[in-house]
Amino acid sequence: MNVERLFQDFKINESGALDPESLKHKLEASGLLLSDISLKNVQHLIDNEKIDLKFFKKMVSENKTLRKALTGDLVIPRFDLFAEEITRFYNLTKNNCEGKVSSSIPWLGTVNPDYYGISLCTIDAQRIDLGDVNTSFTIQSVSKPINYCLALEEHGEDTVHRYVGREPSGRGFNELQLNDDHLPHNPMLNSGAIMCCSLLQSNKSSAERFDYVMNYWQQLCGGNRPGFNNAVYLSEKENADRNSAIGHFMNEKKIFPPHTDLLQTLEFYFQCCSIELNCKAISVAAATLANGGICPTTGERIFKPETVKNCLSLMFSCGMYDFSGEFAFSVGLPAKSGISGILMLIIPEVMGIAIYSPPLDSLGNSVRGIQFCKMLTNKFNFHIFDGRINRFGKVDPRNKNTEFTHRTQKVQ
Amino acid sequence: MNVERLFQDFKINESGALDPESLKHKLEASGLLLSDISLKNVQHLIDNEKIDLKFFKKMVSENKTLRKALTGDLVIPRFDLFAEEITRFYNLTKNNCEGKVSSSIPWLGTVNPDYYGISLCTIDAQRIDLGDVNTSFTIQSVSKPINYCLALEEHGEDTVHRYVGREPSGRGFNELQLNDDHLPHNPMLNSGAIMCCSLLQSNKSSAERFDYVMNYWQQLCGGNRPGFNNAVYLSEKENADRNSAIGHFMNEKKIFPPHTDLLQTLEFYFQCCSIELNCKAISVAAATLANGGICPTTGERIFKPETVKNCLSLMFSCGMYDFSGEFAFSVGLPAKSGISGILMLIIPEVMGIAIYSPPLDSLGNSVRGIQFCKMLTNKFNFHIFDGRINRFGKVDPRNKNTEFTHRTQKVQ
Amino acid sequence: MNVERLFQDFKINESGALDPESLKHKLEASGLLLSDISLKNVQHLIDNEKIDLKFFKKMVSENKTLRKALTGDLVIPRFDLFAEEITRFYNLTKNNCEGKVSSSIPWLGTVNPDYYGISLCTIDAQRIDLGDVNTSFTIQSVSKPINYCLALEEHGEDTVHRYVGREPSGRGFNELQLNDDHLPHNPMLNSGAIMCCSLLQSNKSSAERFDYVMNYWQQLCGGNRPGFNNAVYLSEKENADRNSAIGHFMNEKKIFPPHTDLLQTLEFYFQCCSIELNCKAISVAAATLANGGICPTTGERIFKPETVKNCLSLMFSCGMYDFSGEFAFSVGLPAKSGISGILMLIIPEVMGIAIYSPPLDSLGNSVRGIQFCKMLTNKFNFHIFDGRINRFGKVDPRNKNTEFTHRTQKVQ
Amino acid sequence: MNVERLFQDFKINESGALDPESLKHKLEASGLLLSDISLKNVQHLIDNEKIDLKFFKKMVSENKTLRKALTGDLVIPRFDLFAEEITRFYNLTKNNCEGKVSSSIPWLGTVNPDYYGISLCTIDAQRIDLGDVNTSFTIQSVSKPINYCLALEEHGEDTVHRYVGREPSGRGFNELQLNDDHLPHNPMLNSGAIMCCSLLQSNKSSAERFDYVMNYWQQLCGGNRPGFNNAVYLSEKENADRNSAIGHFMNEKKIFPPHTDLLQTLEFYFQCCSIELNCKAISVAAATLANGGICPTTGERIFKPETVKNCLSLMFSCGMYDFSGEFAFSVGLPAKSGISGILMLIIPEVMGIAIYSPPLDSLGNSVRGIQFCKMLTNKFNFHIFDGRINRFGKVDPRNKNTEFTHRTQKVQ
Repeated sequence: MNVERLFQDFKINESGALDPESLKHKLEASGLLLSDISLKNVQHLIDNEKIDLKFFKKMVSENKTLRKALTGDLVIPRFDLFAEEITRFYNLTKNNCEGKVSSSIPWLGTVNPDYYGISLCTIDAQRIDLGDVNTSFTIQSVSKPINYCLALEEHGEDTVHRYVGREPSGRGFNELQLNDDHLPHNPMLNSGAIMCCSLLQSNKSSAERFDYVMNYWQQLCGGNRPGFNNAVYLSEKENADRNSAIGHFMNEKKIFPPHTDLLQTLEFYFQCCSIELNCKAISVAAATLANGGICPTTGERIFKPETVKNCLSLMFSCGMYDFSGEFAFSVGLPAKSGISGILMLIIPEVMGIAIYSPPLDSLGNSVRGIQFCKMLTNKFNFHIFDGRINRFGKVDPRNKNTEFTHRTQKVQ
Repeated sequence: MNVERLFQDFKINESGALDPESLKHKLEASGLLLSDISLKNVQHLIDNEKIDLKFFKKMVSENKTLRKALTGDLVIPRFDLFAEEITRFYNLTKNNCEGKVSSSIPWLGTVNPDYYGISLCTIDAQRIDLGDVNTSFTIQSVSKPINYCLALEEHGEDTVHRYVGREPSGRGFNELQLNDDHLPHNPMLNSGAIMCCSLLQSNKSSAERFDYVMNYWQQLCGGNRPGFNNAVYLSEKENADRNSAIGHFMNEKKIFPPHTDLLQTLEFYFQCCSIELNCKAISVAAATLANGGICPTTGERIFKPETVKNCLSLMFSCGMYDFSGEFAFSVGLPAKSGISGILMLIIPEVMGIAIYSPPLDSLGNSVRGIQFCKMLTNKFNFHIFDGRINRFGKVDPRNKNTEFTHRTQKVQ
Repeated sequence: MNVERLFQDFKINESGALDPESLKHKLEASGLLLSDISLKNVQHLIDNEKIDLKFFKKMVSENKTLRKALTGDLVIPRFDLFAEEITRFYNLTKNNCEGKVSSSIPWLGTVNPDYYGISLCTIDAQRIDLGDVNTSFTIQSVSKPINYCLALEEHGEDTVHRYVGREPSGRGFNELQLNDDHLPHNPMLNSGAIMCCSLLQSNKSSAERFDYVMNYWQQLCGGNRPGFNNAVYLSEKENADRNSAIGHFMNEKKIFPPHTDLLQTLEFYFQCCSIELNCKAISVAAATLANGGICPTTGERIFKPETVKNCLSLMFSCGMYDFSGEFAFSVGLPAKSGISGILMLIIPEVMGIAIYSPPLDSLGNSVRGIQFCKMLTNKFNFHIFDGRINRFGKVDPRNKNTEFTHRTQKVQ
Repeated sequence: MNVERLFQDFKINESGALDPESLKHKLEASGLLLSDISLKNVQHLIDNEKIDLKFFKKMVSENKTLRKALTGDLVIPRFDLFAEEITRFYNLTKNNCEGKVSSSIPWLGTVNPDYYGISLCTIDAQRIDLGDVNTSFTIQSVSKPINYCLALEEHGEDTVHRYVGREPSGRGFNELQLNDDHLPHNPMLNSGAIMCCSLLQSNKSSAERFDYVMNYWQQLCGGNRPGFNNAVYLSEKENADRNSAIGHFMNEKKIFPPHTDLLQTLEFYFQCCSIELNCKAISVAAATLANGGICPTTGERIFKPETVKNCLSLMFSCGMYDFSGEFAFSVGLPAKSGISGILMLIIPEVMGIAIYSPPLDSLGNSVRGIQFCKMLTNKFNFHIFDGRINRFGKVDPRNKNTEFTHRTQKVQ
């Protein structure tokens, strides 16, 4: 790496110092936020110091993110071109007005169907925010993969899977049915998610258990405290027939851990579903999963790699309701959708994406969310089996020499 | 790359030429075969030329495989250490004498249950062969993913999937059941495989169709002509109740392409199952799939990347009978097993492995095959969701600086 | 019984003999045929003798049927009024032009959809014939209950039910599924019917086996030889996918009796379905079942009471395809329908009815047939749980004092 | 009828009056109770009057039951012989110690497994009482057919069956599944029974609704007030997971009538299951159903014939849990069992029988109850398709000339 040449790429003023704005601009074009922890120190120096070559050399040697940004070694090297494409997809999908806002819980039906936000965060904390990314919504089923992770972290894989299976159930398979071992098929179905809730901090008080989950979400999202939508929670509780049926059925089969209080478990489950976040926050949580359990904006490890591996495996095979099989085949990425219209997508070792658009298709997934995902992996080689070598046809945005020429796309 | 330093690593004789044996040894320790096309020229030069520094420089600059081998840039850089581990797994699993040889087709039941062979071939054609790797056996269901590829290449994804689904069916779901669109659930089930057969070269004669499939297998395996086990074929035909039931059921539902001759299609299907190969050959075919469709030993492209992507997707979710879900979760790699005891494993962008051991478990998979796969991904970070960054605990053999220290393993 | 009074009811000529025509008229009004065996002698005497009181007394004492007819002790005492109602139902249902002629076997689709015939025969051989009662058609699934009877007579209940179940399968339950004991659910499904065929005279030649069945039908129908529709047979054989699937599936499960030849069994099954009869003949066979196994026109015992009991039980619960449960509830009588448009109805201890009208509803039953049956048990107390005492609302035609006043009917 | 001859059959004292004891004895041998309403007046006269021929004639002409008893026209004419057989069956089945007392509701598990009672009541109020006929027990599922009758009487068939189906569901079919119209399959399953409860007097208070059911039971049983087992009720409520699951599932499907309060409905259902009766009382209720809805001991009409017909139809096809199909085939009579060990059997137009023996088989039916029913219809022609004419092998106890010779029996 030739630091001198990097230095010379910037506008240099007469005193031999580089123009702070041009450095800031360079970093922002890479999708980085100067306010992120990884660059906080850099921002301070830019704002307060005269950056001559010597100082520049020191800065570059001391800050890894800065260095990667300047040398094109961030996970998406040509981020500006990539962002252009994402924006194009956003605008194209915005025209799609199909689908219907869920009314399975009355309160959800009142939401503005036009909300549309996409946030993206790479494992190097490069970001894109498009549309209504600050609008909060309840996470609903997106709580499931995280609660599964929490159960794994607390009890280990073996114990957790004595209580819940880890395979897709087959399309159209009623959640009231259990698998051959008389367990819920997997943690992404309501039955399995209720089971995971029963496992979390079971000897704590209700308040402590909920706080425990909230703390984890806060860390996953890079530090912002999630909200809680009490109206939705009450609405869920009052319209709980399906989940009550599931819970009582499981209780009758005596498959819950000993001493499980069914009603309290159901309430805990509804509370987890009623946590409120926005696209920005969820994209960071998604990036944390993409990053093997380390939050890319704080650098903190939240989950063990093994936990993340298991979670992504089940998101991949079971995360999109009855569309899971088709999604795994055609998009080929771990994801989880919720009936509020959120779709959380993981591109392992690359990025996390949060898409929020309330109108759902008949299988309960966000219409625009699905379309966006298809466009994404149709253009880029992100499908888990796309591979990066000996391939043609798709663009590899992880490659700094890749060309982003548009090829004609075919997405239903 | 400092070629001079590479040169000096070898034994140099008084005339300034390097010792040919030490170069050969170096290449063989990398798992490469000098007889492979990629090194054929190198072998010729070693055997016939005096390799001084200048000549060495020329050789290295002209042969990519040689260069990668010398610089540690083959996909498995420290192949000797890796091979040691594979051998250890082979020896450990050899003690496992559980399982029963399939007798679903009478002729299959007569095979020697002690046969055990493992062949491995990386996308750089590095190889390991352990045990009965030259013993031929019928490929049975391993014909399914390849026939699916052939159907995709001939008709394209859209057409093929108008005739067969692309999702797992759910454990225990009877093959006589079709999916909601009244199609076989996927090409890895007998129903879907018979459907794929009906699509292949359907206006050709029986002889031409079979020859067509044989030619593809020959190319996939790097050039060796497969055999055909007529005794097994006749035995399959005489014990065809299950497949006849499936075929007639599909015929009654009028889901075959127009003008399909059911009996001829079933015979074609049985013929494909009766193709004979050995572990060595299948490992190359598997490596071809791992390599995005290009045979690593011949360098020829056999399948389009899109074809391979689709095939791996369905091998991942549906390739191991009713164990598919559990295999995808715990091993996390595309694979296909056959009741002859073969298990073909793909590590995308890394290698293909063929494991042959006739005794099967209750779900129809090779007992030793499954155990070997579990050991493999328990030790190495090959699970599709293992990832390579921010991880700990598992060994990354793609990394030239990795350590192969044994960690305690837990494999049932 | 006051015979003198009976005598005086007839027109007496000057020589003290009764008018032969008035006696004939009386018998015919009772629904009896003078040509039936039970009255053949009476007819001879009427035609050739002078019937004065003394001779009349002798005739009456010697012929049970004559006696019952004159004293109002036939099972339907006021047969003329009853026939009037049946005719009214026939005419009303004739207006129903819904339904579609089956084309599941191509040849069947060519039949005239306007054919409509109803024949009725009581256990005392009283008869009604309306419409196309001499038109022949293939019996199709009506062969099933009779083949079940033949299997019971040949092997006994215990043996037969080691091969086939005896319970309804549940609506919509696919015939390709077997019950928990891995047997066909019952002999009224194709699977169970094929099984019954495999049990009949299995060590005889094909010709002998078919002749065996034909002989039974001949006896059941009172002596007329059935026909055979070879065109339908060939059409069935050529469109046998469903049944071939079922047969191969059962063969694979190894549930057939030892030494069963599947193809021969299927052909035998198709032959039984292709037997040709008309309404007149089937009504007598139905009456034979209603009469505990004794043919009412010949007085011969064809089946044991136990055989008939078992057959009626399964016709009651399983005879009307997926409409069986609803039919048992709303009509409440044993019946069997065939896709040629035949519906054979049994009113135990009372009569048998054959209704032939090709247009079928979506469940495969004759539209007019179902409507007629509903009208019948809506008016008369023939539902198996209607009872004859402490009831009101319905007419009891077995009671000589009953009134046939029309009450308003409600039949969909 | 020659009354003088009947009179002379009795012991006549010197004053020309018959011996009261001999008349009483005659009536008791017929199975009649002098304390029943139908004979109350006769008893009074016997005790207080001198019965000479003239008075006897008057008595006989005025009392139908007396007349039938003396002329052998009660439904079971030779009741003493019949009672002997029933007693023999009771003693034989008493030796059967298989089965296990239900512990699905904890309180039920505490019952004495040796209790064994059989009460029988004909439609002419002839009675047999054997063993623990005064022991009270909760009726459990025997509440289902009666609640179905109440729903029919209140709303009519059309309305009731807009909420619940009327067909068997198929063996092993989970109660949590609904039929194709998204309704419970029938009123004999928990789902359908809960539905029927929701329909009963739905605008009344809980107390009024329960009292309404109790009043009906009182009338059905001939006037004795049923009890209520509050301990069982509380135990049911506390162990209600299965029924809660069913109820919530149905609620979620929105299939209950508008304004249904689920919890209140479930409590009402549990209350109905916790009604306490003994064999004597239930046999009268069963006889009321056998008698077309008129209680044989009080002569009061409780249900319409149409109601009874529908109820018997569904008891016949669905009354014995997963044994229903087999019971209908082999016993051939409407029946309902409850997990307390009660089995209520109806022989239409003949009698009702209550059998109480707590040990259950694996399908939830009383072991001795099933065995007794098989013995009964193996000996007597009570199977609904046994018929009474042209039969042989079985005894017809409705025939005054029948012989009760024992034939060898084969009952598992």
